[in-house]
Amino acid sequence: MVSRENPRPGGRSARVQASVHQAVHDMLVAMDRAEVTIPLIAQRANVTPSTIYRRWGDLQELLADVAASRLQPETEPAKTGSVRADLQAWTEQYADEMSSGAGRQMIRDILSVPDTANAEKCSGYTQQQLRVLIARAQERGEPFPTLTELMDYVISPIMYRILFEQPPNADCVRGLISRVMPEAVVKS
Amino acid sequence: MVSRENPRPGGRSARVQASVHQAVHDMLVAMDRAEVTIPLIAQRANVTPSTIYRRWGDLQELLADVAASRLQPETEPAKTGSVRADLQAWTEQYADEMSSGAGRQMIRDILSVPDTANAEKCSGYTQQQLRVLIARAQERGEPFPTLTELMDYVISPIMYRILFEQPPNADCVRGLISRVMPEAVVKS
Repeated sequence: MVSRENPRPGGRSARVQASVHQAVHDMLVAMDRAEVTIPLIAQRANVTPSTIYRRWGDLQELLADVAASRLQPETEPAKTGSVRADLQAWTEQYADEMSSGAGRQMIRDILSVPDTANAEKCSGYTQQQLRVLIARAQERGEPFPTLTELMDYVISPIMYRILFEQPPNADCVRGLISRVMPEAVVKS
Repeated sequence: MVSRENPRPGGRSARVQASVHQAVHDMLVAMDRAEVTIPLIAQRANVTPSTIYRRWGDLQELLADVAASRLQPETEPAKTGSVRADLQAWTEQYADEMSSGAGRQMIRDILSVPDTANAEKCSGYTQQQLRVLIARAQERGEPFPTLTELMDYVISPIMYRILFEQPPNADCVRGLISRVMPEAVVKS
């Protein structure tokens, strides 16, 4: 398994990565993905093909790396009022994005290579967002599920449905969350 | 989405399917998968390449179809004593098989195509086995989880771990099952 460290920001390696990722991104928007090749990406990113082969191995690995990067969250889950509502909103958005054509293609790219580093990165991003919500609930003293409960009983069933069945709708997501929410001990 | 009916057993279509599947299976054992091509498969299966293109579209779709067929269970879950123990044994075997190199490759093949028919077939096989266990529990009057509980809280977390994290070990599988088992109402 090849695990690549994030390059030092601003260094040559980071610039190569940014320019290759941008080239792949632009080409996937503009052309059929069957036509995207490493020589074309190299030309557009202004690097040599061997730079790409040396760093990513092959096209599939590069596509998996680009897909994982695009799944990196840019903002924390929105604050809506209660943390339960934040979880609800964030999870519905997660399910929508992952179920979309672009989302499914990114998951396919990430899962289609034997190297699991990008898949683990993708799960790491999800856990990072859930940890923000858990910390928020602790601060406010709201009862909240654990990370394991959220990953096992909300995220996993959503991902299984997207990959092997039908994408879950908002009702389904709400149901998964309800079943994992601890009831407040004292109701006033 | 292309959904293909199972061909009539013994008919020409079924014979073509069996011979092409067998050829793919043998070639995947004997050679590097990067060297497996439709013309070579056609030659080995004694059909024309156009027969394969017409029926499966492309190599990825054919590999997904072969992988899904190989996941079709040949026997019912073994009877071990209690249905809970049957579930335990079957689920551990499921997790082991899916986590193995061959299992992961089959899942990759199934998920790497945009057509979701084979992924749904794969989920259908899992549900079929779980239904056998549910019926067995009903017959014996043993308390047992529902199909939805088993799919959401046992199968989905196992598959998520295999795809995005680390394959679950036997303890992890046991934990997932424990948390979903209804306690017997009357303890004597």
